[in-house]
Amino acid sequence: MSVLVIGHMNPDTDSITAAIAIADLKSKLGVEAKAVAQGEVTPESKFVLEKFGLAAPAVVTSVEGQKVILVDTTERAQLPADLDKAEILGVVDHHKLGDVTTSSPLEMWVWPVGCTGTVIKAMYDFFKVEMPKNIAGAVLCAILSDTVMFKSPTCTPQDKEAVEALAKIAGVADPMALGIEMFKVKSAVAGTPMRDLVFRDYKDFDMGGTKLGIGQLEVVDLGILEPYKDQLFEEIKKVKAEKGNNGVFLMLTDIIKEGTEMLFIADDPSVLKKAYNIEPGEKTVWLPGVLSRKKQVVPPFEKVLKG
Amino acid sequence: MSVLVIGHMNPDTDSITAAIAIADLKSKLGVEAKAVAQGEVTPESKFVLEKFGLAAPAVVTSVEGQKVILVDTTERAQLPADLDKAEILGVVDHHKLGDVTTSSPLEMWVWPVGCTGTVIKAMYDFFKVEMPKNIAGAVLCAILSDTVMFKSPTCTPQDKEAVEALAKIAGVADPMALGIEMFKVKSAVAGTPMRDLVFRDYKDFDMGGTKLGIGQLEVVDLGILEPYKDQLFEEIKKVKAEKGNNGVFLMLTDIIKEGTEMLFIADDPSVLKKAYNIEPGEKTVWLPGVLSRKKQVVPPFEKVLKG
Repeated sequence: MSVLVIGHMNPDTDSITAAIAIADLKSKLGVEAKAVAQGEVTPESKFVLEKFGLAAPAVVTSVEGQKVILVDTTERAQLPADLDKAEILGVVDHHKLGDVTTSSPLEMWVWPVGCTGTVIKAMYDFFKVEMPKNIAGAVLCAILSDTVMFKSPTCTPQDKEAVEALAKIAGVADPMALGIEMFKVKSAVAGTPMRDLVFRDYKDFDMGGTKLGIGQLEVVDLGILEPYKDQLFEEIKKVKAEKGNNGVFLMLTDIIKEGTEMLFIADDPSVLKKAYNIEPGEKTVWLPGVLSRKKQVVPPFEKVLKG
Repeated sequence: MSVLVIGHMNPDTDSITAAIAIADLKSKLGVEAKAVAQGEVTPESKFVLEKFGLAAPAVVTSVEGQKVILVDTTERAQLPADLDKAEILGVVDHHKLGDVTTSSPLEMWVWPVGCTGTVIKAMYDFFKVEMPKNIAGAVLCAILSDTVMFKSPTCTPQDKEAVEALAKIAGVADPMALGIEMFKVKSAVAGTPMRDLVFRDYKDFDMGGTKLGIGQLEVVDLGILEPYKDQLFEEIKKVKAEKGNNGVFLMLTDIIKEGTEMLFIADDPSVLKKAYNIEPGEKTVWLPGVLSRKKQVVPPFEKVLKG
């Protein structure tokens, strides 16, 4: 039985390519492994997979009785509900340590860098396994996506070095041109159902008993989203009610202007004021310089909510 | 302010030497760091530190306002009570993933091997930092201790390779002779208060709401402990009451015969029967082949208690 390599719900390009890469690496190290995902891929990931001739991972929502390796998250709220009935053999991640626990010793590669892909590049090197060209190209895109082409405060020197090394392996002459091409695909929202936009890159968190959902849409120009803001607000309102969350936040991030308009619906919106010392509007607030959910939204929210 | 590198309560040789080694490695990587410990060192650790001319880490019981790196555990029950008021920068460990969580991304080196020391040897190699001779010798002893000189089922090929490499660095010609010398020091119990014996290598666990303490004494001949069994039983009874635990288990492990006599006092002793399919006596049971708390006691207990 193959070990399943699985990332978070609403998989982004890092979750998808990390699952593919770790399944490849583990298989070459003698552990039969298979990349899976908790949902269909986003347009951005589809672009990346097609670009490098890779298949999308099979969609899996239950891991009961399976052996699994987690990539890109250790948050139970972002993993299959029956995770307790699986055996977790390993974790490869670049986030804060979440509430996943195990009953047996495991292997963890977790670094405070901009992307799981950067950790994965180091793992191939560590285990002296040659990285396939197409996987290198896809992981390169994941790093450019997660670090917003090195602009995000999550970006580290290791991420830049990894992109440089991966570009050589993959034969990508101009990684930044590829990045812009990818972000343009990501920015295309016309014709997409509002629900799909909210969930395109959405994560639930349990912060000391307060249940929050935080989604993010990254675009090359916020103007693209202007016509949809009201509909997006109505949609997060529905999502909040359906999930029974205490709040749902949707980051509309302009990667060129380098800031985020945060749409929100919350039982207690004062979390925003406390976190950023900015007076929020009724359902939206502009947060200059904020590009990263992981580094600029989750920690200040946690600080406010966990006291 | 130095980053504090800290292991579990009732520190064993691995927790002590791992803290010393990681503080050395981090300092050489440009992060000022200091080894500390949650208690005085055991006679075994004292022997190891004296052998290699190292000082015992300062005792620290509060980490409020500090930056910390955890070694050899991710269990809150084994860490300072005010850990929530510290910032966890990293984890180096070889156990199951416990209930520690963080608010920010961190660095984790966790492998399913016999000893934190084995992970640490790989970290020095990964970061291309030369390991000092005396630290290599001390870490070597930690691996021999944790793996019961390679006899424990927790021992992996990586542990053996690490011992071989560390012996060369430290100039230890016969690691096994050093190991036996160390275990003889560990076996000496005469004149030691019963409380010290129970806590010499003791850990508390929260297993799905059931609070258990599990201690371990490793000796080269179980006969050494024969005269103390009744007193040890009375002592774990007191410990259970004081801690309000649901059970306290004390593993009396014979490393030559390769088995454990388990002294126990528990609200529901049927956990032993369910875990090992052996009918326990009133306060003791012989578990042939059991040498490792981490691999042969904690997982079967968790399986029974978490269902």
